[in-house]
Amino acid sequence: MPILLSADHAPRLDELLEAADTTGLTWRIESDEAAMPRIAGVGTLAGAGESELAFLANPRYEHQLDACGAAAVIVAPAVAAAHRMRRAETGSAPLILVACAEPYLLYARIAQWLERAQRGHLARGVHPSAVVGDVSLGQGVRIGPLAVIEDGAIIEDGVIIGAGCFIGAGSRIGADSLLHPRATLYRGTSMGPRAIIHSGAVLGADGFGFAPDPHNPDVVWSKIPQFGNVTIGADVEIGANTTIDRGALDDTRIGDGVKLDNQIQIGHNTQIGAHTAMAGCVGVAGSATIGERCTFGGSAMILGHLKIVDDVHISAASLVMSSIDKPGRYTGAFPLDEHRDWERNAAVLRQLARLRRRIQALEE
Amino acid sequence: MPILLSADHAPRLDELLEAADTTGLTWRIESDEAAMPRIAGVGTLAGAGESELAFLANPRYEHQLDACGAAAVIVAPAVAAAHRMRRAETGSAPLILVACAEPYLLYARIAQWLERAQRGHLARGVHPSAVVGDVSLGQGVRIGPLAVIEDGAIIEDGVIIGAGCFIGAGSRIGADSLLHPRATLYRGTSMGPRAIIHSGAVLGADGFGFAPDPHNPDVVWSKIPQFGNVTIGADVEIGANTTIDRGALDDTRIGDGVKLDNQIQIGHNTQIGAHTAMAGCVGVAGSATIGERCTFGGSAMILGHLKIVDDVHISAASLVMSSIDKPGRYTGAFPLDEHRDWERNAAVLRQLARLRRRIQALEE
Amino acid sequence: MPILLSADHAPRLDELLEAADTTGLTWRIESDEAAMPRIAGVGTLAGAGESELAFLANPRYEHQLDACGAAAVIVAPAVAAAHRMRRAETGSAPLILVACAEPYLLYARIAQWLERAQRGHLARGVHPSAVVGDVSLGQGVRIGPLAVIEDGAIIEDGVIIGAGCFIGAGSRIGADSLLHPRATLYRGTSMGPRAIIHSGAVLGADGFGFAPDPHNPDVVWSKIPQFGNVTIGADVEIGANTTIDRGALDDTRIGDGVKLDNQIQIGHNTQIGAHTAMAGCVGVAGSATIGERCTFGGSAMILGHLKIVDDVHISAASLVMSSIDKPGRYTGAFPLDEHRDWERNAAVLRQLARLRRRIQALEE
Repeated sequence: MPILLSADHAPRLDELLEAADTTGLTWRIESDEAAMPRIAGVGTLAGAGESELAFLANPRYEHQLDACGAAAVIVAPAVAAAHRMRRAETGSAPLILVACAEPYLLYARIAQWLERAQRGHLARGVHPSAVVGDVSLGQGVRIGPLAVIEDGAIIEDGVIIGAGCFIGAGSRIGADSLLHPRATLYRGTSMGPRAIIHSGAVLGADGFGFAPDPHNPDVVWSKIPQFGNVTIGADVEIGANTTIDRGALDDTRIGDGVKLDNQIQIGHNTQIGAHTAMAGCVGVAGSATIGERCTFGGSAMILGHLKIVDDVHISAASLVMSSIDKPGRYTGAFPLDEHRDWERNAAVLRQLARLRRRIQALEE
Repeated sequence: MPILLSADHAPRLDELLEAADTTGLTWRIESDEAAMPRIAGVGTLAGAGESELAFLANPRYEHQLDACGAAAVIVAPAVAAAHRMRRAETGSAPLILVACAEPYLLYARIAQWLERAQRGHLARGVHPSAVVGDVSLGQGVRIGPLAVIEDGAIIEDGVIIGAGCFIGAGSRIGADSLLHPRATLYRGTSMGPRAIIHSGAVLGADGFGFAPDPHNPDVVWSKIPQFGNVTIGADVEIGANTTIDRGALDDTRIGDGVKLDNQIQIGHNTQIGAHTAMAGCVGVAGSATIGERCTFGGSAMILGHLKIVDDVHISAASLVMSSIDKPGRYTGAFPLDEHRDWERNAAVLRQLARLRRRIQALEE
Repeated sequence: MPILLSADHAPRLDELLEAADTTGLTWRIESDEAAMPRIAGVGTLAGAGESELAFLANPRYEHQLDACGAAAVIVAPAVAAAHRMRRAETGSAPLILVACAEPYLLYARIAQWLERAQRGHLARGVHPSAVVGDVSLGQGVRIGPLAVIEDGAIIEDGVIIGAGCFIGAGSRIGADSLLHPRATLYRGTSMGPRAIIHSGAVLGADGFGFAPDPHNPDVVWSKIPQFGNVTIGADVEIGANTTIDRGALDDTRIGDGVKLDNQIQIGHNTQIGAHTAMAGCVGVAGSATIGERCTFGGSAMILGHLKIVDDVHISAASLVMSSIDKPGRYTGAFPLDEHRDWERNAAVLRQLARLRRRIQALEE
């Protein structure tokens, strides 16, 4: 199970709960003992060890509590009460509980604190093998080995740039952002604070823009150079090998709090509203405008030059061919079937218009 | 807005039009003043500043002309005439126009000139941190920091290889090609002149070839080593994180002028004809033969061992399961619907063959 | 055609057949001459030269045998016999044949031997430009230029790590594995022996996990830090730009002999059984459990938290929305059609439930 901190850096459970951001959450430690355990990591209910914190969010797993070997478990207050009663009846071993009405969210907040604490093992400063031009480096910045940062880049306080990242000229990385190894930012990319960019992500490659050229038989497609940039808000996460193209003239813009999974493709000039989330393999063609708080299932595809309003939810593998002006859930995916049945139905599907005419004829 | 050149490198408008490739295009500068402005960049009609060139290709935006602050605007001759008349009537501020029957194409050609001019800021020669084997380097070559070029590679005149690119043994990069940072070319990859390869593209990884092996329970799939190469024509552009596999024995071939967007996967032994263009996330399985001037919408998928003739256009998210021997437009995508409606219709879709039999029964 | 070994390293045909792993296969060299040719590479039946080995597995190409210029050809015994008879009749030029009941599999085994032999040209040891922490390096290890290996990594015997790879802290690379340039392994990734990882693959990026957070308007999605690892069995191949996310708490697990093509996305906590193979662009959402010996066609998409039993075969571009508990072949893809026909049929598809009611009305 994941041990994240060495024993001498592990906080006591009560210290950890005070240190983590628990805004809006109420919690209470229920323990028979005065001594608080030290928390060095987290684990599952079934697997956590004596220095690890676990959580119980799904009632289905409540039976695992009795055999749980964790240092402490975050549970809903009702679960804590039931556990207390059961222990009084059966005399089972004591277990430290943290009661909270939203156990999963409290777990998330604590895990975020631990994750940031473990970043401390990275060396501060610029690794000697990195190639760093004339740039502005904030306080406490960490630049990994073999990273390249071109002239004019602004790296704000607390940023971590992983091994082998490329930061193009004039880019700006907001405070406390974390770029994992081998992220690539073309010139002029900018992002707000607390971004997380995963390996292999490419921000700012050319949008796919060509004009048909009838005057030169060697050049059927004449390239439209792409001069806009990629501009990203605060608290954005971008997954591994995801690509976001630079705008043609204006910028491609990703709003605050947007979460993009792996292998997503965002075409040039696209505008994505705040807190929209996309699962892996989604594709957005150029010049789409997508609202706030939308969600997109894996491999959904959105055509270009269309508009999707706020609070639209697109199912996995669905194709959006035209604008959507009403919030709601939309789907367009072929239902899976045994291959032989699919073959039969797909054959009829290709005659569907004819079939309707036959029904009309019967009705007349 | 994108300023591309410093003031002392910015050409005068008339110099720029003479310097750019305007083959096949007729243009005329319409200005009240003798002095020509210097053009340091380009911008949108709404956003361009006094040293930037804009264009008007879509009549919808013609009303923006009057308030336009650009150094000059490329417009159709009729728009120029109308603007002249309007100015005579209203006495609005003078605006330098470049009249051309194909304003977007003229813009593209000029923008291409500017894009190449701005490459001049990159340092010539080999960055000291690059690891370059026994290779042939042409005139005016630029090799970025931390690039790796293996023995036997041929880098022709004017090539730019970005930071962290990997060029495998015996590869050949045609003159004036531009490889953005972190492009990866396995050994033996070759490309013609003027290629543009974006970051994260991988050319020449092994094709996906395995033989079932019944003789070794540990090896259900026995690997077919991939010994062919990737061979790319002239004027090809390959998007970020796109992958093109090497052939099994013969080469995977990409024709002249082919344009591939981001995150496209081209399987081994595939042959793509000249000037075919594919939007993002398209997948082509192995050993497909695709004609010239075809287009593929985003996320289209083409199965292997099939043939598509010239001038075929496949819509987004459509699956090509068999050969296509007639030019035209083809589609196969599930129409999007509100989720509840989709559920109802999808349920019936799985009974479609039965439904047809019921219609037949009614007809009899 | 691919010459793989220099003349002085090329084995004689009989030596090659003895050296290669031919477990379970029976073969016989049929030659008129005592002298055995040296085999420096392989080629197609039509293109192989005098130092290259070819094979004939598809009877369709049998007519190419007579003009074949290869050093030797692997054929089925019946083909060898027919060729002998034809030569006796026509007196055509002698050709060395290797008769084997499974010519393609014998070819694969020999090609594997040649592929490993050619790796010998890579320099042993650690390239001076690599940045290698406090790690364990096995015998005969090769580390390419500009690779980064963090503290605590274990690199077993015979491993080759290509230029620019990143191996995170505490990772383990099994013996004789081959990592192509620019593969990226986050901390704690482990793999068994004989893995092949292609360029741009990213193992161990964060899974896509967020909890809705109603207490902070700036944080609609609260990140669940991902602390599990990626654990990969023996003999696994992972394609270019494929991404496999680390688990949330437990590990994401890829079984022995699994073959993943390019640009596949595997979500966190996913479990893939031994010898399952996936073609390019497949996506698997989080927490899916996939059986052994399954196959997935290109661009198939599997939703999360579902279970697929052993020996299930999913067709290309099909979406798996729920668990599959019966082996077999499953499909769900919209059949391609001429665009106008598709338009007509798709329009009716959106009224399918209504159409069924009309049929019911007619029946009543």
